[in-house]
Amino acid sequence: MSFTRLQKLINEKNCRIVVGLDPRPNMLRVGETLFSWGKRIIDAVAEIVPAVKPQAAFYEAAGIAGITALSETVQYAKQRGLYVIMDAKRGDIGSTAEAYAEAYLGIGELGCDCVTVNPYLGSDGIKPFLVQAESNDGALFALVKTSNPSSGELQDVITDSGKPVYIRTASMLGALDASGERIGFVVGATYPEQLAELRAMFPKSFFLVPGYGAQGGTAASVAAAFSADGSLAIVNSSRGIITADDPRAAAVAARDDINSVICK
Amino acid sequence: MSFTRLQKLINEKNCRIVVGLDPRPNMLRVGETLFSWGKRIIDAVAEIVPAVKPQAAFYEAAGIAGITALSETVQYAKQRGLYVIMDAKRGDIGSTAEAYAEAYLGIGELGCDCVTVNPYLGSDGIKPFLVQAESNDGALFALVKTSNPSSGELQDVITDSGKPVYIRTASMLGALDASGERIGFVVGATYPEQLAELRAMFPKSFFLVPGYGAQGGTAASVAAAFSADGSLAIVNSSRGIITADDPRAAAVAARDDINSVICK
Repeated sequence: MSFTRLQKLINEKNCRIVVGLDPRPNMLRVGETLFSWGKRIIDAVAEIVPAVKPQAAFYEAAGIAGITALSETVQYAKQRGLYVIMDAKRGDIGSTAEAYAEAYLGIGELGCDCVTVNPYLGSDGIKPFLVQAESNDGALFALVKTSNPSSGELQDVITDSGKPVYIRTASMLGALDASGERIGFVVGATYPEQLAELRAMFPKSFFLVPGYGAQGGTAASVAAAFSADGSLAIVNSSRGIITADDPRAAAVAARDDINSVICK
Repeated sequence: MSFTRLQKLINEKNCRIVVGLDPRPNMLRVGETLFSWGKRIIDAVAEIVPAVKPQAAFYEAAGIAGITALSETVQYAKQRGLYVIMDAKRGDIGSTAEAYAEAYLGIGELGCDCVTVNPYLGSDGIKPFLVQAESNDGALFALVKTSNPSSGELQDVITDSGKPVYIRTASMLGALDASGERIGFVVGATYPEQLAELRAMFPKSFFLVPGYGAQGGTAASVAAAFSADGSLAIVNSSRGIITADDPRAAAVAARDDINSVICK
């Protein structure tokens, strides 16, 4: 679904948190399967948050049973009314990218409202996802400035225009979707200056902000991701919620923490 | 497996072609499944080529049944003695990258000899694959200069050092694996000047060269990928072989075409 629906859910719940479903093997309780783990988390947070973000890697690591659980988890989250972002960071070209777009934005077993993609291949790697998103009211988030310590090795390299690579990436994406309705940016909470810079340069683009919590990002450091009215961004929280004894209470706390820095 | 085993298979068969297993739905013959399609191709080429490269996207687009077929295809190719490169272009960080590395370089249902990865996130996104590769005698190919028309939008941007981004990428990768034993580069046949430049700068690195055939690359344009003795590169051919009436004959023709430009 386009970001219009995501923003509507955010507004209804007054919550700017997406729960990252990252089932590392040591997180499963005794007797839990990958699916029942996800169902427990989804049931705990479904009334609080607008969205969940399954991390494909942890399901792929479990092979065929893992993909089955991923599909069940996606379907269950949709059934509970949540916006589902597949964190797959796919990136390929032509008919290969079309196949990925069909897999994660189509109507099949793994079809979601939104998918994350990698921009290294240029617009050839983005357009097929945009085409699929337009045909199916979907959306995508492309990596722009990621939250990890080494993200600057390529993303911060200054180019001959005087701007870093991540600005070139954002400009390439912005040129494909000037409305900002279907292509959002992944920008890490761990780089608040870059968040503010990108927010100012791309006032219509939706941001997915990882790095809050375990990676060191705070509510203060993500504040710059939002537009003046507190919209156009969603902050990922994974470990802080999914490893909590009471994930619902942890989601409420994260929601309130982020809302405390939003001007409404 | 490290590139040592791949080079050994290349030498034994005197063939520098990897067959890309890209099962677009319209390629399957009446009655064929994703697996029986792959088995037919593998049976046809197994005595000719050293390696196959399943494209994960086409299997993921078929959901759970597709992943099951992918696993069966990987296992069958290994059983036939082929080196298997999973073309997944994964890219993530930390424990997420570890999960992808476990999925595609581990001992599970989707475990292969080698996997393709995306470098946009910097060395945080590469190291977990290298660690897994070292523990399991595996290898990886990272995207450096891709074969598609828009690859230059980010990869060719000139940086403040005077070098394009793809050289920064290659240098980042080279710093992680100076021996070139486990981290290879993806460099497109459609950019022969860049192939020659990278070959000269990174004389020990193994290259995976897409773009030969349908995308316009010729034997002459891939010649620069090889070291002076005709080693250290493998050329992907997909459509030219997998859609041929006689895939074995097409593999022989591709083998001979590439060998004709190698100085031995």
